[in-house]
Amino acid sequence: MKLLLKHCDILAGEDFRCLKDAYLGIDGDTIDYIGTERPAAAYDQEKDMSGKMLLPGLINCHGHTAMVLLRGIGSDLPLQEWLFEKMMPVEDRLTAQDIKAGNALALLEMIATGTTSYSDMYFETMTAVENAAESGIKANLCRPCQAFSKEDSYAQNHRAAESIQLFKDCHGMENGRIRIDFAIHAEYTNFPHIVEAYSADCKALGGRMQVHLSETVREHEECVAKYGKTPARWFYDLGTFDSPTAAAHCVAVTEEDLQLLLEKGVSPIHNPSSNMKLGSGFAPIPKMLDLGLNVTLGTDGAASNNNLNLFEEMHLASILHNGFTHDPTLMKPAQVLAMATRNGAKLQGREDTGVLEVGKKADLIALDLQRPHLYPNLNPLALVAYAAQGSDVVLTIVDGKILYENGEFLTLDADKIMYEAKAAVKHLYG
Amino acid sequence: MKLLLKHCDILAGEDFRCLKDAYLGIDGDTIDYIGTERPAAAYDQEKDMSGKMLLPGLINCHGHTAMVLLRGIGSDLPLQEWLFEKMMPVEDRLTAQDIKAGNALALLEMIATGTTSYSDMYFETMTAVENAAESGIKANLCRPCQAFSKEDSYAQNHRAAESIQLFKDCHGMENGRIRIDFAIHAEYTNFPHIVEAYSADCKALGGRMQVHLSETVREHEECVAKYGKTPARWFYDLGTFDSPTAAAHCVAVTEEDLQLLLEKGVSPIHNPSSNMKLGSGFAPIPKMLDLGLNVTLGTDGAASNNNLNLFEEMHLASILHNGFTHDPTLMKPAQVLAMATRNGAKLQGREDTGVLEVGKKADLIALDLQRPHLYPNLNPLALVAYAAQGSDVVLTIVDGKILYENGEFLTLDADKIMYEAKAAVKHLYG
Repeated sequence: MKLLLKHCDILAGEDFRCLKDAYLGIDGDTIDYIGTERPAAAYDQEKDMSGKMLLPGLINCHGHTAMVLLRGIGSDLPLQEWLFEKMMPVEDRLTAQDIKAGNALALLEMIATGTTSYSDMYFETMTAVENAAESGIKANLCRPCQAFSKEDSYAQNHRAAESIQLFKDCHGMENGRIRIDFAIHAEYTNFPHIVEAYSADCKALGGRMQVHLSETVREHEECVAKYGKTPARWFYDLGTFDSPTAAAHCVAVTEEDLQLLLEKGVSPIHNPSSNMKLGSGFAPIPKMLDLGLNVTLGTDGAASNNNLNLFEEMHLASILHNGFTHDPTLMKPAQVLAMATRNGAKLQGREDTGVLEVGKKADLIALDLQRPHLYPNLNPLALVAYAAQGSDVVLTIVDGKILYENGEFLTLDADKIMYEAKAAVKHLYG
Repeated sequence: MKLLLKHCDILAGEDFRCLKDAYLGIDGDTIDYIGTERPAAAYDQEKDMSGKMLLPGLINCHGHTAMVLLRGIGSDLPLQEWLFEKMMPVEDRLTAQDIKAGNALALLEMIATGTTSYSDMYFETMTAVENAAESGIKANLCRPCQAFSKEDSYAQNHRAAESIQLFKDCHGMENGRIRIDFAIHAEYTNFPHIVEAYSADCKALGGRMQVHLSETVREHEECVAKYGKTPARWFYDLGTFDSPTAAAHCVAVTEEDLQLLLEKGVSPIHNPSSNMKLGSGFAPIPKMLDLGLNVTLGTDGAASNNNLNLFEEMHLASILHNGFTHDPTLMKPAQVLAMATRNGAKLQGREDTGVLEVGKKADLIALDLQRPHLYPNLNPLALVAYAAQGSDVVLTIVDGKILYENGEFLTLDADKIMYEAKAAVKHLYG
């Protein structure tokens, strides 16, 4: 199947240069043409995309997708109360069926708002594998390792065992569309001997790692008090960063921590909505970008966001740091769009996507520019970063396959998903 | 004409209590029924609003609407360079026709994202009167007073003269839907003798005032250096606050300034997108709310936002201050929704709207809750503040008249407006 998208603006290449009235050709799962001249080759299908702009699909590098079922619970409570009194009792009741229903609900929102690949950290991870396989989205899924007593043995840690088995069973499924990552929930939910052994297994198996890192000042300082070192140094010393690692949040990191992340090529994941809503604070993103770290974007779970819309995260990442540092020249739209696209692809180990270039996978979205809030288009990148909405997405393509077009889902049954989500909500809350 | 909206959720009263499967009746321009029982009275028309939620229409208290025509210009430049090298040269070329086209484009976005009333500070204000009259929206319009030399006489200040004439000609037009306010652009664009005389005229004529106040630390400190007093004290001493006053931004205000605002009943207008994007910083909104100030919301102009979507401002107001102060318990959804509705009505001198109650004007909007990112609805106010999007608005009613429904504009010709906006853009940029 060869598809030609024609007469559209295209944010092409790593510099997002805007081609006008251009053509993008797709052969199977791969981009085979980009240019302002009509390609010589024949295509099976052509779509007139006048008034639309193509950009790389967005990559959501951190989330707990099934937590859409906890959307809105415990808002505006202190963090510990929110977590222990509101989140955990509901999570205790979650069945695999609930989680699958929650994942599916989340996928509707993510696909409709332009996410073509996401990373997810939750439990009953096999359900997420099934959801991702069915939907056509790309997914890096992980079952995080945690331990609750320092007497726990690594050999008996069922989370680590599940994680490793999942990697062996499912990594690379669907022609590489589904990847399995390793994950350590966080320093404060683990013990050194577990983390060291699990990190060694990750390295031996050639896996990638994801962790929560210094999300709050409290977490950071308690680690220093307990171990005499920061969470970043703790993970570094335990060998976690010897695998390609993604570190969610990085709000309370020190200058020395950033040097450790740089040395090991750890990719920070910025989750601005969650960091603001939960009162965590401002990750030093401009400094990370100056250092050359591969900074990416995530939504975190909907319980702390409260949605999964990367356009909101791009917008926040674009403006928050200006306000915090009193400098309007920070966080250029091209930097933020890179965070949301090719930096995320690199974090996920997907070097074949994240940019609109011939030879890359056809993972892309189209925005409808013919809307009042997107006119005039005097600066296409500023338009995306500051003015566009998730609801402006009218086409989502992954591996050359259309998942969403003009409000319709082509791989998922939205009515069935809403029906099953209602059943899960009834189970959870009566 | 009597219209009954039925089977919807309604955020009723000042406490936004959520009525389920409820009815809201409209008689002419006024709400005549709210309840969960079907009203006894007959209605000419009934609308099944199953799956929708009604809330008061949103009130955008600060903006420069025609600046949508400058959307995206000079993004990411230092403030002075942005203003003097990018904004002003284009503004110099703006004709009345351009401004009218820009206003109309802005109205499409505002009405579609749930704004039922707005305050606007710009020039060629008669065009905005015509735009507002045609569209059916409520508007508080002003032509700001500025002076460029301390030798200028008040009697010869054409801006002040235009402002006062406009008040005499148009205040209260369209059955009160259009109001004319007085405005002083800012301390740094004026001189004391002008401000004092204009403020006295405002008071004598019974007008309301709008000013920019301490938007940046630089503006604030330069005023202190020049006059030995803060901008708030400067306006206070010149009698500006002796009329009901709205003060946009209030980022760099002192504790003593807040006491002056409180004493005079000045309403601060929070513009979080603009304050973040331009690097202005964090207005002390939680402190203002604690003091009991009538805090409201605005978008500012699209050149510094870059859109006019109050759902984004509600979201930012809800989360930013948590992040800045490391306190997730601040800025409750009900507070933020009040800022966006009845506090704005009070600022505009519209005590007959801003809340869904019998006897109030029928200024309201409906959100479509049947969307993946709005399910489950476990906490309706958190849903509005943290998860909802401007694009979830499916109905906008002002004074009982439907302005927008399911993507269609009923009072404005969107195609004609886009056509005229293109002509303005061509005139401005070639």
